[in-house]
Amino acid sequence: MKVDGLSTRTIAPLPGRDGVVIIDQTRLPFRYELRTLRGLADAAEAIAVMRVRGAPLIGATAAYGVALAMTEGADLDAACATLAATRPTAVNLAWALARMRARLAPLPAEARGAAAWAEAAAICDEDVELNRAIGRHGAGLIGALAEARPGPVNVLTHCNAGWLATVDWGTALAPVYAAFDAGLPVHVWVDETRPRNQGASLTAWELVQHGVPHTVIADNAGGHLMQHGKVDLCIVGSDRTAANGDVANKIGTYLKALAAHDNGVPFYVALPGPTIDWDLADGRAIPIEERRADEVTRITGENAAGELVSVRLTPAASPAANPAFDVTPARLVSGLVTERGVCPASRAGLLDLYPERRR
Amino acid sequence: MKVDGLSTRTIAPLPGRDGVVIIDQTRLPFRYELRTLRGLADAAEAIAVMRVRGAPLIGATAAYGVALAMTEGADLDAACATLAATRPTAVNLAWALARMRARLAPLPAEARGAAAWAEAAAICDEDVELNRAIGRHGAGLIGALAEARPGPVNVLTHCNAGWLATVDWGTALAPVYAAFDAGLPVHVWVDETRPRNQGASLTAWELVQHGVPHTVIADNAGGHLMQHGKVDLCIVGSDRTAANGDVANKIGTYLKALAAHDNGVPFYVALPGPTIDWDLADGRAIPIEERRADEVTRITGENAAGELVSVRLTPAASPAANPAFDVTPARLVSGLVTERGVCPASRAGLLDLYPERRR
Repeated sequence: MKVDGLSTRTIAPLPGRDGVVIIDQTRLPFRYELRTLRGLADAAEAIAVMRVRGAPLIGATAAYGVALAMTEGADLDAACATLAATRPTAVNLAWALARMRARLAPLPAEARGAAAWAEAAAICDEDVELNRAIGRHGAGLIGALAEARPGPVNVLTHCNAGWLATVDWGTALAPVYAAFDAGLPVHVWVDETRPRNQGASLTAWELVQHGVPHTVIADNAGGHLMQHGKVDLCIVGSDRTAANGDVANKIGTYLKALAAHDNGVPFYVALPGPTIDWDLADGRAIPIEERRADEVTRITGENAAGELVSVRLTPAASPAANPAFDVTPARLVSGLVTERGVCPASRAGLLDLYPERRR
Repeated sequence: MKVDGLSTRTIAPLPGRDGVVIIDQTRLPFRYELRTLRGLADAAEAIAVMRVRGAPLIGATAAYGVALAMTEGADLDAACATLAATRPTAVNLAWALARMRARLAPLPAEARGAAAWAEAAAICDEDVELNRAIGRHGAGLIGALAEARPGPVNVLTHCNAGWLATVDWGTALAPVYAAFDAGLPVHVWVDETRPRNQGASLTAWELVQHGVPHTVIADNAGGHLMQHGKVDLCIVGSDRTAANGDVANKIGTYLKALAAHDNGVPFYVALPGPTIDWDLADGRAIPIEERRADEVTRITGENAAGELVSVRLTPAASPAANPAFDVTPARLVSGLVTERGVCPASRAGLLDLYPERRR
């Protein structure tokens, strides 16, 4: 998607294989800073300190980390171990490293460099195509609403499932970009998404840069907007989807799904097929990460002097709890938007799109 | 309730009628600063810049503002006009001024001073008794849950409807204080309540000072906690209640009511009888204030040096919307806790408690 008018990916190799350029996402939305990863250590650091985040982008960065390591003449196993240790619970990280290892291990050492760069590029291109397909299918939902009546289609989203979380397009925002690029009138309500404010920072920044009309709101506001007919459609992403269509996503997603259901607003979840956990019968067993309390009690923003500062919001003696995700039951989900099309949030719906998963 | 171990009211006259002491709530939770209002101008300023806030406390401060004006020898009409202009839409402000005027206007000028101080004290004492009665009735709900099983009763609240919003006790928190003071095991989940963070600042501070166990959470977290059986009871306040039991309260209340309903968690609204709008058939007609966007795009907290600083959270080019209240339909409310007892959230329920309102 666009930054300062230029089509941009979140990660791109330099010509000559002597580096990989990323956006330092820890500085957004206040600073747009590109950073060149020159070797394995840089790639590992970028993942560990969350200069890159979002499962697909973490996987892509790990793949390029292996490519940088091969150019450095590093050992394949050691490089994979270094990268795997950066974010131990990231599923895409393990997946990308396994794929790189499977491609490279059979090759003689002198052939691994070129193969690694090619494989990392393939992982990135496949991610882009997956998301582009999600965007195409989801844009159909927006298009149908745009045809039904005049004025912009108001889409509410939660957290950041935009192109910054992937290589390009994003998941929940891919339909918005596809609709916008096709000239459909669209406006996005951006939940700020406390406590980490991925909506207020990353989603809002993406939409500013690509030129998509949007409005930031407190997470509390969505229900009221739906009661008053100001939301036509919700689209969110998913960290993990159970085989029955239950969806784990950023904390607060469930509350928006309840409000959408109560007001007859369609509630869609956009997700790439690989994030479906076919072994998980329903969402109740999904473990929910409890993150640090200081994500709730403190926040970082830009002061009057243009400096980024962290401030405390609560009494020092007050404890805080910080569950990072919640599970939205399939009964509240109007449909799942995947790279293969839109389906009901049910086992039957998913199996129609992924028949190879039938037993 | 207690501050630093001392029982405290939000507003109290000095002996000798030469001042009224308030808590400067604009400094909470970072600073506990008392401030003495010495005359009409001080009282008007305190209301206008929200050193005092909460409908009952605004009314009480206006009443003492009239008393201070009488001691200064000011004109009654002019004093009331000055105070009425501070927060034009505050219902309790107009009510308290009308009551003071009705009490004082018939009196000769030399008798107004003593009468004004007495009437202001009566307004405060009546508020305290009203809230104490709400607390007694609401504590019964907590007590019943405490008897049903071991462990603390987990109460979720939204925004600040605590003693800081009233003269003492509060509305939604009155049952919590009454239960806690009676030795019942109680723990409060405190919604931070974006965008103005009244929960994270005021409610959390109150509970710290009174010693009530509590945990601050992002507004997004409540639904997840309810799904996992970690909330036994919700109690919130109300800015305005329609005759059918629909409740206008701080933005986001509706989302918590939906989650409570979906998970079988009782959802109660605590309110003094005078905030019921008997002329309002239902909540759909309640106008919702749209507040300044910078309440969403900026936040104030304490930096590492102990200074209060305001920081920006969003891209400068992103607009924000800020509806301040939402309406929770009576169908989602388990009951209304009033000074006369607990009733169903319905016209019939309210009329059983307030039979004088039957036509």
